[in-house]
Amino acid sequence: PHKGAGLPLPLAPLKASLQLFGLLLVMFSMTMLPPLLVALYYDDGALEPFADSFAITLLSGLVFWLPLRRHKVDLRNRDGFLVVVAFWFTLSLLSAIPFMLAKNPHMPLVDAVFEAVSGLTTTGATVLSNIDALPHAIVYYRAQLNFFGGMGIVVLAVALLPMLGVGGMQLYRAETPGPMKDEKLTPRITETAKNLWMLYVGINVICTLSFWLAGMEPFDAICHSFATIALGGFSTHDASIGYFKSPAIELVAGLFSIIAAVNFALFFFAWRQKSLRAIFADEEFRFFLRAIGAIIVFAIGWLYWSGTFPLWEAIYHGFCQTASIVTDNGLVTANYPDWPLPVTLLLLLGSFLGGCVGSTCGGIKAMRFLLLYRQSVREMKLLIRPTAQIPVKLANRTVPERVMQAVLAFYFLYIFAYCACSVGVAATGVDLVTAFGSVAGCINNMGVGLGDTAGNFAPLNDAATWILTLSMLIGRLEVFPLVLLFVPAFWR
Amino acid sequence: PHKGAGLPLPLAPLKASLQLFGLLLVMFSMTMLPPLLVALYYDDGALEPFADSFAITLLSGLVFWLPLRRHKVDLRNRDGFLVVVAFWFTLSLLSAIPFMLAKNPHMPLVDAVFEAVSGLTTTGATVLSNIDALPHAIVYYRAQLNFFGGMGIVVLAVALLPMLGVGGMQLYRAETPGPMKDEKLTPRITETAKNLWMLYVGINVICTLSFWLAGMEPFDAICHSFATIALGGFSTHDASIGYFKSPAIELVAGLFSIIAAVNFALFFFAWRQKSLRAIFADEEFRFFLRAIGAIIVFAIGWLYWSGTFPLWEAIYHGFCQTASIVTDNGLVTANYPDWPLPVTLLLLLGSFLGGCVGSTCGGIKAMRFLLLYRQSVREMKLLIRPTAQIPVKLANRTVPERVMQAVLAFYFLYIFAYCACSVGVAATGVDLVTAFGSVAGCINNMGVGLGDTAGNFAPLNDAATWILTLSMLIGRLEVFPLVLLFVPAFWR
Ligand SMILES: [K+]
Ligand SMILES: [K+]
Repeated sequence: PHKGAGLPLPLAPLKASLQLFGLLLVMFSMTMLPPLLVALYYDDGALEPFADSFAITLLSGLVFWLPLRRHKVDLRNRDGFLVVVAFWFTLSLLSAIPFMLAKNPHMPLVDAVFEAVSGLTTTGATVLSNIDALPHAIVYYRAQLNFFGGMGIVVLAVALLPMLGVGGMQLYRAETPGPMKDEKLTPRITETAKNLWMLYVGINVICTLSFWLAGMEPFDAICHSFATIALGGFSTHDASIGYFKSPAIELVAGLFSIIAAVNFALFFFAWRQKSLRAIFADEEFRFFLRAIGAIIVFAIGWLYWSGTFPLWEAIYHGFCQTASIVTDNGLVTANYPDWPLPVTLLLLLGSFLGGCVGSTCGGIKAMRFLLLYRQSVREMKLLIRPTAQIPVKLANRTVPERVMQAVLAFYFLYIFAYCACSVGVAATGVDLVTAFGSVAGCINNMGVGLGDTAGNFAPLNDAATWILTLSMLIGRLEVFPLVLLFVPAFWR
Repeated sequence: PHKGAGLPLPLAPLKASLQLFGLLLVMFSMTMLPPLLVALYYDDGALEPFADSFAITLLSGLVFWLPLRRHKVDLRNRDGFLVVVAFWFTLSLLSAIPFMLAKNPHMPLVDAVFEAVSGLTTTGATVLSNIDALPHAIVYYRAQLNFFGGMGIVVLAVALLPMLGVGGMQLYRAETPGPMKDEKLTPRITETAKNLWMLYVGINVICTLSFWLAGMEPFDAICHSFATIALGGFSTHDASIGYFKSPAIELVAGLFSIIAAVNFALFFFAWRQKSLRAIFADEEFRFFLRAIGAIIVFAIGWLYWSGTFPLWEAIYHGFCQTASIVTDNGLVTANYPDWPLPVTLLLLLGSFLGGCVGSTCGGIKAMRFLLLYRQSVREMKLLIRPTAQIPVKLANRTVPERVMQAVLAFYFLYIFAYCACSVGVAATGVDLVTAFGSVAGCINNMGVGLGDTAGNFAPLNDAATWILTLSMLIGRLEVFPLVLLFVPAFWR
């Protein structure tokens, strides 16, 4: 007899949340079908796990959605957070099922969830150590987790969150003064999401063709395109991009890493204006290019002068690897873990930069560093002339106080979460370099560790693996939604 | 014919700067006399190096001061920075002289400067590995470097900087809303400085007596009091406070570390009001107590349950060592480098906290973390209710936007400087744990490293030693004055 609007709080929003949650699961179950087709095509024996996973996911979704489907979804801010967090946690479990059911790999829960979360958060850290021997369907499924994870982030970041006002990634509401607020992408959210989807697929097609032209097999080209545009980094080979031993392929991987680190909203404007000006005039992207350019020059220089590689190899390895690590893609080449320490260390620190807001990158993001940098310069000037009026500007406008406050809180909580997770991992008995390197690789959604995890994450104990799984989610959800659940006011 | 005021810029302020600089050097030369007396008393053969150092320092000061002494000192903000930085660099060189001239230790320039800067910045990191065999005068001189370094910081922080408006440590101008702005300490700067000096000496006397009553020889008690109240950490023994194997001594060291981490301005108010309320009602100090309390409980618990120590030893070792490391004192006990990694790691991270503003501690300081914490909580609440008006408050007043901006820039630059120095040290060939641990120990003016430098800093190469010397100065000067010198606008 009760109908949504008439229910006492908090039952009405709870039902609305569960309905949306169920609908998202139903949609997600469809992602089990392409790997199923791959299994059919290659007849690699991995058909059954995907059929089972499809059924389980679809049914879980219908259980929530069917009984509640007539409720009008009208979420408050806090419900948005709850749906986002619940959805991520459920998806982490459901998308781990194929890894557990398959005969190869037959992974235990902890490893399967790590691998699934790593795919969906576009981290790309793996606990598998014999990828070349996996069935095609599993290899494709991993790449596809990157693909959908990346698309989800872009749609969420560029289209859904700013319009819903769901602050989950409060950056996107508060900190997109550039093009985002000047010109609306398109007024209607479904249309925007559709356009983004087409754009995302289009860039993937171009990237696939580029990898193919550079010499990859079509299957590898598709999977590496999924990995690159999502900045995910799941490769089809243990040696990752280094397997191909091809300068052309490395240059394609490096270039498309940087392309994928652009705010996807800028591609719209570039498309509409038929000019790349919108992209190259963007202050955040220019700042990002200068920062990554400096790191690339350092890496190439050090690789060459330390005698690690001859000049031409230093150039393309250095460019590809720096672009891959700093944008938090995480494809690796040429025995990267054995490179000189100053280079690997600088790239690891660079992975905190990531790329632009509204891309698939991880980390703290160029926009925030740009604002932190400008605020620091301003502070210097104020020390010299304490009474001067010096605003922090972006796109010729003063950045609102509100935005700077959000950056301050984010930066503080992100570093705090980084340290807390690292202490947690170290407390499980892992050495310090591995602990801090692994958490950096995971919280930045980059996917390459340090020390024991420089190659892959298999050597870690279960407790550390769980903490790293959590830190991937912390990074991808940008800290706030997870911490928010522990704030008492949230539940009142 | 030219007189200060009539000179064209920038000659007038330059002359004023040099005059102040010379005067400070003359004052500093006097600090060579007490160790000279110690050398006489113990007849330990270290008389000559201090006599020579006295002469050199005095003459250097007179060279600047005598010809310019009639100029009226009237500094602009930027001159203040220049004097502060130039003074620290000159002092670093001059106070290294006894270490180079003495027969034991006969240190090369790089080590002597490291040791001197470590003393003056109250870092307490040492490159000496046989302290027990040093002449008394040298041992005393090291402790005295801590003493004067600490007093210089307190006077600078509490009295000079806020009144001069010299923003060097802009925290003290911008971020002392509590007692500092409510009630002026005393209106006249010389009187304030004198009161602070007496207070500082008074607390040192009480601490010396406490160490003596706990069982130390008078010489050791004086030196350890100097080390503790300055939060410097130079001990008279290689085994530091662990040499004494005494619970009473460790409890005194821990307790006075916490006392020394109180804002010295609060001692004034407590004295005037004849009540400790001023101290325990202070929001920064309460925040500091909660934070350090949590770390102490963790350390004691882990030491006990891991079986490192029986309960009573876990309690006093855990309390003493946590208080010493988190407040950036750096006295160590009971083979601290061999303690379980989670404890040493958490204490190392805790050293970024330090203590209260206006104390001799290092690190980022409790006030800034308190503001960062409150800003984060505020951000959470705004995510739940985006239209709410939620100010960040301190002592029942809204914290000005200006203060939050200063905290943002400081926090960013401090972490940036920490990473840059660590990459620099790693680039000299040092392993990662040692690099990041040593820089944390130095930039936080804490004095205990990690890895190779867990015991002392002797194993490091010269390049790394220079970078660490710089990072001690960066931490002590709170980043801004040093970075400022590289801002072109400063020189215009
Ligand atoms: K990645
Ligand atoms: K210290």
